[in-house]
Amino acid sequence: MVSVPSVSYSITVRLEVPAGGSTVSLLTAAVERAGGLVTALDVTGSGHDRIQVDVTCAATSSGHAEELVTALRTVPSAVIGKVSDRTFLVHLGGKIEVTSKVPIRNRDDLSLIYTPGVARVSQALVDNPQDARRLTIKRNTVAVVSDGSAVLGLGNVGATAALPVMEGKAALFKRFAGIDAFPICLDTQDTNEIVRTVEHIAPVFAGINLEDISAPRCFEIEERLRERLDIPVFHDDQHGTAIVVLAALHNALKVVGKELGSIRVAMAGAGAAGHAIAQLLAAAGVRDIVAADVHGIIHAGRSDLTGVPTWYLEHTNPRGVDGTLREAVAGADVFVGVSAPGILSAEDVATMADDAIVFALANPEPEIDPREAGEHAAVVATGRSDYPNQINNVLAFPGVFRGLLDAQSHSITTDMLTAAARALAETVTDDELNPSYVVPSVFHSGVADAVAAAVRDSVESIRRAAEETGEFPTIPV
Amino acid sequence: MVSVPSVSYSITVRLEVPAGGSTVSLLTAAVERAGGLVTALDVTGSGHDRIQVDVTCAATSSGHAEELVTALRTVPSAVIGKVSDRTFLVHLGGKIEVTSKVPIRNRDDLSLIYTPGVARVSQALVDNPQDARRLTIKRNTVAVVSDGSAVLGLGNVGATAALPVMEGKAALFKRFAGIDAFPICLDTQDTNEIVRTVEHIAPVFAGINLEDISAPRCFEIEERLRERLDIPVFHDDQHGTAIVVLAALHNALKVVGKELGSIRVAMAGAGAAGHAIAQLLAAAGVRDIVAADVHGIIHAGRSDLTGVPTWYLEHTNPRGVDGTLREAVAGADVFVGVSAPGILSAEDVATMADDAIVFALANPEPEIDPREAGEHAAVVATGRSDYPNQINNVLAFPGVFRGLLDAQSHSITTDMLTAAARALAETVTDDELNPSYVVPSVFHSGVADAVAAAVRDSVESIRRAAEETGEFPTIPV
Repeated sequence: MVSVPSVSYSITVRLEVPAGGSTVSLLTAAVERAGGLVTALDVTGSGHDRIQVDVTCAATSSGHAEELVTALRTVPSAVIGKVSDRTFLVHLGGKIEVTSKVPIRNRDDLSLIYTPGVARVSQALVDNPQDARRLTIKRNTVAVVSDGSAVLGLGNVGATAALPVMEGKAALFKRFAGIDAFPICLDTQDTNEIVRTVEHIAPVFAGINLEDISAPRCFEIEERLRERLDIPVFHDDQHGTAIVVLAALHNALKVVGKELGSIRVAMAGAGAAGHAIAQLLAAAGVRDIVAADVHGIIHAGRSDLTGVPTWYLEHTNPRGVDGTLREAVAGADVFVGVSAPGILSAEDVATMADDAIVFALANPEPEIDPREAGEHAAVVATGRSDYPNQINNVLAFPGVFRGLLDAQSHSITTDMLTAAARALAETVTDDELNPSYVVPSVFHSGVADAVAAAVRDSVESIRRAAEETGEFPTIPV
Repeated sequence: MVSVPSVSYSITVRLEVPAGGSTVSLLTAAVERAGGLVTALDVTGSGHDRIQVDVTCAATSSGHAEELVTALRTVPSAVIGKVSDRTFLVHLGGKIEVTSKVPIRNRDDLSLIYTPGVARVSQALVDNPQDARRLTIKRNTVAVVSDGSAVLGLGNVGATAALPVMEGKAALFKRFAGIDAFPICLDTQDTNEIVRTVEHIAPVFAGINLEDISAPRCFEIEERLRERLDIPVFHDDQHGTAIVVLAALHNALKVVGKELGSIRVAMAGAGAAGHAIAQLLAAAGVRDIVAADVHGIIHAGRSDLTGVPTWYLEHTNPRGVDGTLREAVAGADVFVGVSAPGILSAEDVATMADDAIVFALANPEPEIDPREAGEHAAVVATGRSDYPNQINNVLAFPGVFRGLLDAQSHSITTDMLTAAARALAETVTDDELNPSYVVPSVFHSGVADAVAAAVRDSVESIRRAAEETGEFPTIPV
């Protein structure tokens, strides 16, 4: 696929050039000729015969950024100074901080927030532990927990290299939902140790966001933590993705005039995200899902199903289809890929039903170039920010946790996830809805609020039902 | 001891009283007659014939606060409305928050701080893990870890009830040293589990502040964590207290004209703080320490020394004194108590050497009323904020960690602690030094900076020495 210049490969080059004449336009022309995009140009110093210019430009890759510097070097009389990488600059010293919400100006303030005053608050919590949600940070605090075993497209990079991602996640929690999230990067990838560690640190938190933990360990870790903790546990790579996919599907079906209950869905990938998406689609009413992993369509007759959740055998492939992904896709209304780059061809899409919907979510390289898919499909979505319909978890997790925390929920159920997806879909109005806009922009106002309200309502109606029947839902997601 | 009204028992009472006349002065008089202190009075609403008044007053205890409300009730025509407790008000929703340091305004910002840009930073950390101190929050982040087993004067209250204290500590870290600290309250009191949990979460942090963990487990936890982690581990109840005691002793000895090397020190209490203080005093050059626990003076002949560190037998009681605390105190130049209320009498102090120094640090009730002690001692210090010479850990831990983080220290040694104590003592100038001012106020400007500089210098000189000799100091504190 053709990449377009991205700010995530953005550099700022400081140059000295002769004052006057056309040197500045030579600089921008050099960047453009080399395929870069000039996003800012500042004259940061000026002398009698020379000026200092900072040229900021977006490239398509690190290598391309170096080519842009080389291109600038060819401009006559330009002297290149410092080259800064904007991505690294913004990460210097980390992206979050812990600040005090209370003034500490004098001895009186100190007596209130620390000894001796704080002892009275601690004593109150000994007497009424449930007051922790009133008198401590617990009510608004979420742990972002990762062992760094499945980080973005990078794979198993470990705890330290995962930290920039978890910090970013914490920054997004605050930006989009006012939640205080703190990164917990674990120096172990042992399932037992992870479960125990999260259990031990849980008292401070009102929710656990698991992040970038590889399958199949993520299933067991989530399940065991849900059994042991009285706060919701949510693996965002699974359920966050599933919510946004279901929301996008609601709206895409509206665009093409089909119904959830009567469509055929072909899926590529049965890992953490694939499993959660398939489960949520089934819970929302999709009856015909055919999933394929790298060895072909999942069915009971296969002898190589190690690691594939048994759920698939009970809940998918109702027509008993056999074969490769190609056979799964033929005649399908919807393709959902959470697998690998380039495994779907335009010819495959052409075999799908009329008004096909293609969600090619492998990142950063989708299962099919979205422009190729668009030749045969009515609606196309990817995980990329440089194409329409980005399936982005940021649309879900802030609102989901806001709702869970506001409702002081002790758990998370499938009903809450489907409610979140419906609410997310509905943030796109009928006037806005079109094949290139089945999910809202991340910056669309009110997204997190709408999702939060739906989750809060769901928690409360489950609570009311439980009070009537005396039974709390225990269905794991 | 007589208590004075404290803001940590401060209430705000809303009343309606007749407008005009002397009703307001009747309110303040009623509070004062009942032994309270009016610290604020606001007319918050006004009608034709009645006004609304908020009276804020300090009491000596929760019971006393109720008496003040009763007293206000006796004022003719006053109608009492809401009574708010200032301490609880300031703790509502917790005292710290996690905020983003980077702007997230649009898709470009998102691409830089999260996907896809953040993947480049993660990859850089895979290639150079030590860059975590440059590209993540690690360099400025400390974990405040407690199992809630020995919280303030409250004892074993557990993880949840400890959280308000740990939040307060985190707020103080930011206020006094610009450090990002996060509370880790552990739902286990098993030594192995605590060590393992802290080990697992360590990648995010550049230092571990252990807090309110009971002896003798705190000794083993600290020692094992120091062996396993490449970041400094510091149990503040021990070493923070020891630093401030040594600093106060430096200055108290200056006041009375004695030398560290020739004094006799009697100590009451051989728990976590007592042990650390005795060790640091010995390291600083005190040769004659006689320590007593609840069963009497510690010496090799005792059969009931279970739980008392063997260090005492090798490093204290050089004259082989036997008996009770009274025998230890007789003739001593210095008394340091970290034990229990009221165990030292004025008669005991009278048996000490001339120009005696008494540090009665049991909290909130000292080993002896500081005014009684002052009848026979030249310098008296306590842990209380309502008497001169408060031995307060806030004087030490922010600067100690600031220095450790700035120097990117991988460990903490006794030299760093004695350097911190010296620097803290020196923040009191010769002009300021007097028997009532042997330690600076917590709000004395420059305290944390001075301590930080001393610790940083100490780390660097240890590093230089290690480079010359090839040996890094491994002496546990």
